[in-house]
Amino acid sequence: MECRPRFPSLKGIAFDLDGTIYLGQSAIDGAVETLAFLREQGLMVFYFTNASGRTREQVRQKLVGLGLEADLRQVYTSGFACAQYACAASLGEVFCIGTQGLRDELGSRGISVTEDGRSAQAVIVGLDPGFSYDRLAEAGPMIGGDCRLIVCNRDRSFPVEGGRLLPGCGPIVAAVESFFGREADYMAGKPNTFMMELLCQDWGLNKDEIAVVGDSFTSDMEMARRFGCASILIAEEKPAVTFDQMQVVRDIRELKDVLFTSC
Amino acid sequence: MECRPRFPSLKGIAFDLDGTIYLGQSAIDGAVETLAFLREQGLMVFYFTNASGRTREQVRQKLVGLGLEADLRQVYTSGFACAQYACAASLGEVFCIGTQGLRDELGSRGISVTEDGRSAQAVIVGLDPGFSYDRLAEAGPMIGGDCRLIVCNRDRSFPVEGGRLLPGCGPIVAAVESFFGREADYMAGKPNTFMMELLCQDWGLNKDEIAVVGDSFTSDMEMARRFGCASILIAEEKPAVTFDQMQVVRDIRELKDVLFTSC
Repeated sequence: MECRPRFPSLKGIAFDLDGTIYLGQSAIDGAVETLAFLREQGLMVFYFTNASGRTREQVRQKLVGLGLEADLRQVYTSGFACAQYACAASLGEVFCIGTQGLRDELGSRGISVTEDGRSAQAVIVGLDPGFSYDRLAEAGPMIGGDCRLIVCNRDRSFPVEGGRLLPGCGPIVAAVESFFGREADYMAGKPNTFMMELLCQDWGLNKDEIAVVGDSFTSDMEMARRFGCASILIAEEKPAVTFDQMQVVRDIRELKDVLFTSC
Repeated sequence: MECRPRFPSLKGIAFDLDGTIYLGQSAIDGAVETLAFLREQGLMVFYFTNASGRTREQVRQKLVGLGLEADLRQVYTSGFACAQYACAASLGEVFCIGTQGLRDELGSRGISVTEDGRSAQAVIVGLDPGFSYDRLAEAGPMIGGDCRLIVCNRDRSFPVEGGRLLPGCGPIVAAVESFFGREADYMAGKPNTFMMELLCQDWGLNKDEIAVVGDSFTSDMEMARRFGCASILIAEEKPAVTFDQMQVVRDIRELKDVLFTSC
């Protein structure tokens, strides 16, 4: 029996990664099959992550390693978005608190990373497992003046194997903001809609043609709400508040029934 | 000619240290003579600092090295205050993000410092030049549960030689609060009045008998305002807003004329 789409205008789905597609080094049950099914039905699949430590190519390789189809252009990370934003803002030299992956994203947009506080036009902040008091102190000369502060995201933490929580980009951003005595000028990642805008621009889509799927109410769903597109939360329990155009499923496999009828 | 006190009820003065008594490794011009003069006139001198990296004994040694008289009991640091607070709160085991100096202050109040998240009753945060992403991650197991979060202060930065700014305790506190997803339960240092309360209790003074002298409007003057005692700001320019019971002088040497007549 042929599948009939419930939302005929829908052309693509932006999937959150951590907690939605994989957890640590393992694909989430049902993710690989569900995404393959959606592709077969003609939907485009995009990958949306606030992860800022890895390049989009590194993320793509991880997805492929888990058995998913992934083209580089379908992968959106907050580090990539940050670099796109810096490029659009015509920044030439920036100081970076972040990984080599973030520096590579900046470099690939023609932005040079400098350690010289006098020439830096912005401080870019991403997740940095090498972050330290000394590294923060090195940003000191950039306090004041007209150096901009651009951050990948404010995620508090992320879970790793064994239920342990590691600090996300948010605590590093909070430390930098406290030291600088002001809030960041721009945040590129979720729940900001910048990655959605990039995607729609790159692929010629509009907000009626794209839906967001993720496990975070405050990040994925909030981004979709702000952007004005449909969203589907994967969660054990329905949140107390829901949005227009937002649905809730318990398992990624249920997407099939939410999006198609008579399959 | 004999000096006559302008404020006969005044018995002691609480001096801020950094920027008021010394800057880096040098005493501020006029500080040593002024404090000696005030002592000769029968005023008690106290030292009040948000510095949390050194023990009060280390601070006392620095003061003595600069030519000032200083008894250990006259020195109040936010690290010492933090330890006093933890002791009064009957905390037995705490996890500490801070220097050996802070650990020593905690230890000297009978509080043991543990690395075991399961037994820590509080996370204590002070200035820590060894702070890092990994150290923050080690506090992860204490997120949630009933572990308290107690911090020395929220100072953004402090100046060092050459006009350079180094991160203060505030950025470290901000990182921990972001990771924990909640604000600290208690801050022991300025502008909280806890150090003033300790002082008054230790020395049997009340708020009419003590004045605060410092160079920071938001820290020293704000503490005095909250506590309800007199204060004197040492500043090049008069701030836009002043408080009742607050005066402004340009140089520590002017204290003599503010506090006494006919000297």
